Amino acid sequence: MLHKIINLTVRDVRFPTSVEQHGSDAMHTDPDYSAAYVVLDTDRGLRGFGLTFTLGKGTEIVVCAVEALAALVVGKSLQEIVSDFRGFYRLLTSDGQMRWLGPEKGVTHLATAAVLNAVWDLWARSEGKDPEQIVSCIDFRYITDVLTEKEAVGETEDQMQKEGYPAYTTSCAWLGYPDQQLKQLCTDALKSGWTKFKVKVGADLEDDIRRCRLIRQMIGPNNTLMIDANQRWDVAEAISWVSRLSEFKPLWIEEPTSPDDILGHAAISKALAPLGIGVATGEQCHNRVMFKQFLQASALQFVQIDSCRLGSVNENLAVLLMAHKFQVPVCPHAGGVGLCELVQHLILFDYICVSASLDSRMCEYVDHLHKHFTSPVVIQDAHYMPPKDPGYSCEMLEASVQKHQYPEGDVWKLHMNK
Amino acid sequence: MLHKIINLTVRDVRFPTSVEQHGSDAMHTDPDYSAAYVVLDTDRGLRGFGLTFTLGKGTEIVVCAVEALAALVVGKSLQEIVSDFRGFYRLLTSDGQMRWLGPEKGVTHLATAAVLNAVWDLWARSEGKDPEQIVSCIDFRYITDVLTEKEAVGETEDQMQKEGYPAYTTSCAWLGYPDQQLKQLCTDALKSGWTKFKVKVGADLEDDIRRCRLIRQMIGPNNTLMIDANQRWDVAEAISWVSRLSEFKPLWIEEPTSPDDILGHAAISKALAPLGIGVATGEQCHNRVMFKQFLQASALQFVQIDSCRLGSVNENLAVLLMAHKFQVPVCPHAGGVGLCELVQHLILFDYICVSASLDSRMCEYVDHLHKHFTSPVVIQDAHYMPPKDPGYSCEMLEASVQKHQYPEGDVWKLHMNK
Repeated sequence: MLHKIINLTVRDVRFPTSVEQHGSDAMHTDPDYSAAYVVLDTDRGLRGFGLTFTLGKGTEIVVCAVEALAALVVGKSLQEIVSDFRGFYRLLTSDGQMRWLGPEKGVTHLATAAVLNAVWDLWARSEGKDPEQIVSCIDFRYITDVLTEKEAVGETEDQMQKEGYPAYTTSCAWLGYPDQQLKQLCTDALKSGWTKFKVKVGADLEDDIRRCRLIRQMIGPNNTLMIDANQRWDVAEAISWVSRLSEFKPLWIEEPTSPDDILGHAAISKALAPLGIGVATGEQCHNRVMFKQFLQASALQFVQIDSCRLGSVNENLAVLLMAHKFQVPVCPHAGGVGLCELVQHLILFDYICVSASLDSRMCEYVDHLHKHFTSPVVIQDAHYMPPKDPGYSCEMLEASVQKHQYPEGDVWKLHMNK
Repeated sequence: MLHKIINLTVRDVRFPTSVEQHGSDAMHTDPDYSAAYVVLDTDRGLRGFGLTFTLGKGTEIVVCAVEALAALVVGKSLQEIVSDFRGFYRLLTSDGQMRWLGPEKGVTHLATAAVLNAVWDLWARSEGKDPEQIVSCIDFRYITDVLTEKEAVGETEDQMQKEGYPAYTTSCAWLGYPDQQLKQLCTDALKSGWTKFKVKVGADLEDDIRRCRLIRQMIGPNNTLMIDANQRWDVAEAISWVSRLSEFKPLWIEEPTSPDDILGHAAISKALAPLGIGVATGEQCHNRVMFKQFLQASALQFVQIDSCRLGSVNENLAVLLMAHKFQVPVCPHAGGVGLCELVQHLILFDYICVSASLDSRMCEYVDHLHKHFTSPVVIQDAHYMPPKDPGYSCEMLEASVQKHQYPEGDVWKLHMNK
């Protein structure tokens, strides 16, 4: 049965999270978690929902970029797209005029992710898929020197239904939270079964020492602590700063420096290895070519894919397969708006079809904004439980979209009148 | 005297160059040379003109991004900006909400370049500058491991007025030109004194062999030939393809693979060195952090800065200084719309204040669209002659802007009615 895509709409949806400092870190002090939210309509009434995550200001630029891509999508049938999904990926990313604006990075790539996420949602709603079809979606251009198509199909298993996929929480220790709030959230999280905690660092060393000490005391020596600097440092600064925090035994330092600095991350990895601290990065790693080099250069010990930064499932699968080849665990970035909902599908795929291991693997979780989705993520005992509804899980409640649409939604009208 | 910036306008200006295949290459088969064109107005009537170069479709996205940056510029005085130009650079590139869309890459960075180019134009029109003030504009974040501020001030000289800066031409051999046109243009160029020629390659090997042979026969063994694949290949493919073209003695292969693939370029550089062929890249190298690594990894032998891809003079100076430290010659990318006009200032600065050498150095030149500028670049005997008018030389004729504004200008109305 053909589903012809007859319309694409994109809306600028913003949540005023900065008011309570949710999501605050050393480089993003006042994020308003937002999304460019895409809906595809087909001639048979089936709809596909996709989004890319943003931090507020500038979401309108991504909306503009999605509109520029719309002409490449509308008028095509779903079957036409998925029968040559790699070709469709390249159509969106390699238009002879548009690619100058990237290629495959920044605003245009975020827009590509939003559109492709909606296409994947549409496909998943319309029928089942198997791994070989999935591999056919990857564009191997520029990465065949480390991974070819032949290597990419692994074994399948299933057991996730009972236990779920391990998660860690970032909800307790945003940089803008006062110590009292941090303590309360940490106490609550421990009660709910959380064992892995991430703390934001990087703005002030004495503050970081105090906060890390506090958290380590609360969670004890056997639970896991990670720290995240959100790109705040230069290379040498990262090494000395993190060395000062090593007494708190963090598993990893996340985003120590520029997300573009592969060789810098390699130097930091090398310097911190004797302290037992790994380097994690990826939420702003803009495409598979960058991840390829991070892996080639031993520049990271934890791969943090992002469901909205990379070109949707297509490009994320390429990275999962490369990470497997280099035997580096994938611990996806999530949180924001809808990232948990999207990324749960990617970790299941990684476990069932690629890595078949949970060793050193866990997925980020942030406890915000899930209520705005029609099929919100389900967490049990600090584990992601497999989604049950068909689709890619990022359909938002229409009432939420309308209320938070920027600038005309009620939430923003109210906010601006303050 | 204070100049307060009271208004910023940005317009989408496109030239239908694809009609005659000007600018066509292996990845960009039908570019319409375009610009997001920025004008700053001050309260004292002084104006600053800046642009970033684009290839047609999607220019409206860059325009949208410039509009998002406008609030950070309008209301400030020029003196306030230039007294802490590094801080202003960081303000534009590190807004806590906007930086998620990059950071410092893609659409938002192109928009930053357009705005900062206009600020530099405004500054240059308002008064003279010296190198120490210029160095104070560079943001050293993320690159202090290879370059610190102290090392960055070199010696000054002047001699350019008589001889000019050596140029090479790309106008003869766009990929879409038939052989007969290529021959005619090459004959004309030789008559005009050109000695260095670039040929587009990468779509079809037999075609490339034929075209390279033709050009090498016409220019003889002592003139210089460069080849440019515009990112067409994977790593292994690049090495084998270029090896096949080595008999034509190209000085460099430009953009053999993904502009993000530092380690890939390093592998290609290593493989081609025994053939006497260097690797050149940079026109899509998106920021100073990437150039830093290209230099650290010996991944290029010619640095091709771009006046509109990097964050204006501020970031280009960082790259010039790093290239000098690594003793790699800078041969800027130019052509497009206004790139020659802008980049002539950067090569003069490089020669007078940084490298003090012309060895292996030359600047790209393309003979199109200069007539639309109020102070077009002056070429004499295949050399760029120093600009005489104050400013950054990218003011366009208002009549040209109006005629080519997209989609409402006369040129596009006519084009769409065909």
